[in-house]
Amino acid sequence: MMYKRQVQYYETDKMGIVHHSNYIRWFEEARIDYMRQNGIDYNVIEKQEHLMMPVVAVDCKYKTGAQYGDIVAINTDITLFNGVKLIFSYTVLSEDDNVLATGTSTHCFVDMDFKPVRIKKDNVNLYNKLCSLLKE
Amino acid sequence: MMYKRQVQYYETDKMGIVHHSNYIRWFEEARIDYMRQNGIDYNVIEKQEHLMMPVVAVDCKYKTGAQYGDIVAINTDITLFNGVKLIFSYTVLSEDDNVLATGTSTHCFVDMDFKPVRIKKDNVNLYNKLCSLLKE
Amino acid sequence: MMYKRQVQYYETDKMGIVHHSNYIRWFEEARIDYMRQNGIDYNVIEKQEHLMMPVVAVDCKYKTGAQYGDIVAINTDITLFNGVKLIFSYTVLSEDDNVLATGTSTHCFVDMDFKPVRIKKDNVNLYNKLCSLLKE
Amino acid sequence: MMYKRQVQYYETDKMGIVHHSNYIRWFEEARIDYMRQNGIDYNVIEKQEHLMMPVVAVDCKYKTGAQYGDIVAINTDITLFNGVKLIFSYTVLSEDDNVLATGTSTHCFVDMDFKPVRIKKDNVNLYNKLCSLLKE
Repeated sequence: MMYKRQVQYYETDKMGIVHHSNYIRWFEEARIDYMRQNGIDYNVIEKQEHLMMPVVAVDCKYKTGAQYGDIVAINTDITLFNGVKLIFSYTVLSEDDNVLATGTSTHCFVDMDFKPVRIKKDNVNLYNKLCSLLKE
Repeated sequence: MMYKRQVQYYETDKMGIVHHSNYIRWFEEARIDYMRQNGIDYNVIEKQEHLMMPVVAVDCKYKTGAQYGDIVAINTDITLFNGVKLIFSYTVLSEDDNVLATGTSTHCFVDMDFKPVRIKKDNVNLYNKLCSLLKE
Repeated sequence: MMYKRQVQYYETDKMGIVHHSNYIRWFEEARIDYMRQNGIDYNVIEKQEHLMMPVVAVDCKYKTGAQYGDIVAINTDITLFNGVKLIFSYTVLSEDDNVLATGTSTHCFVDMDFKPVRIKKDNVNLYNKLCSLLKE
Repeated sequence: MMYKRQVQYYETDKMGIVHHSNYIRWFEEARIDYMRQNGIDYNVIEKQEHLMMPVVAVDCKYKTGAQYGDIVAINTDITLFNGVKLIFSYTVLSEDDNVLATGTSTHCFVDMDFKPVRIKKDNVNLYNKLCSLLKE
């Protein structure tokens, strides 16, 4: 599932390339798009299911700096899901398919008071959808 | 009332100077610091008074671009307050007292559902404090 | 010329709506897109013409806060151009065509050392294109 | 070496806590402060030594979300340095010394054209300073 977006001027820093922190934000964009493409609307999760999926860990390896005006594509997969912990893996690609960066984000499931939620029991629909997306 | 802060690397863009949008964020930092120095804790306003002060207008004029590592000082004043509308004015200064930028932010008062609040009636303390800060 | 984009989660703040500083960044996105749609590639301007168009003033009026997940459309026009100063005007619209915000950004033309450039003389192509875009 | 800073309103997201991407920016603030406290001015490195230290990898584990108004302290150490690769480790602490997050950033050394530089040979001063800071 590819998510494409253009590099913005305000995302660069004085090195002339995209500031490394922005890739973490791109992961979020790609993750939300990936879920939506797969029938999971994060807005609905928060507003109707009263569930949040905070990030508990993130990592990124940078190969080549993206530049202002570049179109980057981000490939997202779910590489771990056990009902409690969910890991997304990302590959950021240039237009000519060079890998610019790779990374992961790890999430848990909490209610609006940040208390852990066992979605296998309490949100069977979401649980089943995420199970079906887990890459084998 | 001077608020000082150092320019961060991630605030620059590929022009080599601070991205113009960050001055709007600095205004927020300076405004919150200005209020705190004058006995108004914005955290208390939101959490205890259940009041928010959203920005309804903002403007900024840029003279010279601040650079990474610079220490900038931001001078804040209240230049209008009538119980409904509140205007802060800012001057961003370099270490050698050159004006880097000037601007204003205009705020209203709303409850947690974004409904307008007449603080003259409902938050007399805040109303009086803000009145006393209004620059003549 | 409409530029559409989706509101990102990381653009919200604890009020639950988009932080006001991000509209200034959206103006940049819309402006660059507007220029590209009209045959002016800002990347080319910087890299080949060795010209920059820094922001010398910006303002924004906020009517209703955009929320995470919203699709916003930004309409951009050139409302002043005299060879030295260039003003873009923006209207941010919701999907049902409500005005969320309006604003302007004012630009000058400088070389890579931030020295003023008279584009009427030195960049006739750019000058003519901008003239043709000026809204009457 | 402790670096302290206050959590800004614009750093929060609609979950009500600091957006996770901002910790990566705090690491940068803490790293630059750590170097300065130890006699390495990153501005001098870029401007006089014509050397950059781009981030090639970053990771962060989040325990508890920092909130607007919190004072956070960031402890920085150098945990690996071999002349080619440099790793900083960070611990973000709350005011009552709870660990909010931990992470690392990995850097290399390049010239202004992003070509690798062997600082052991070409920047003996910087090499020796970094060696002396490496935590045993």
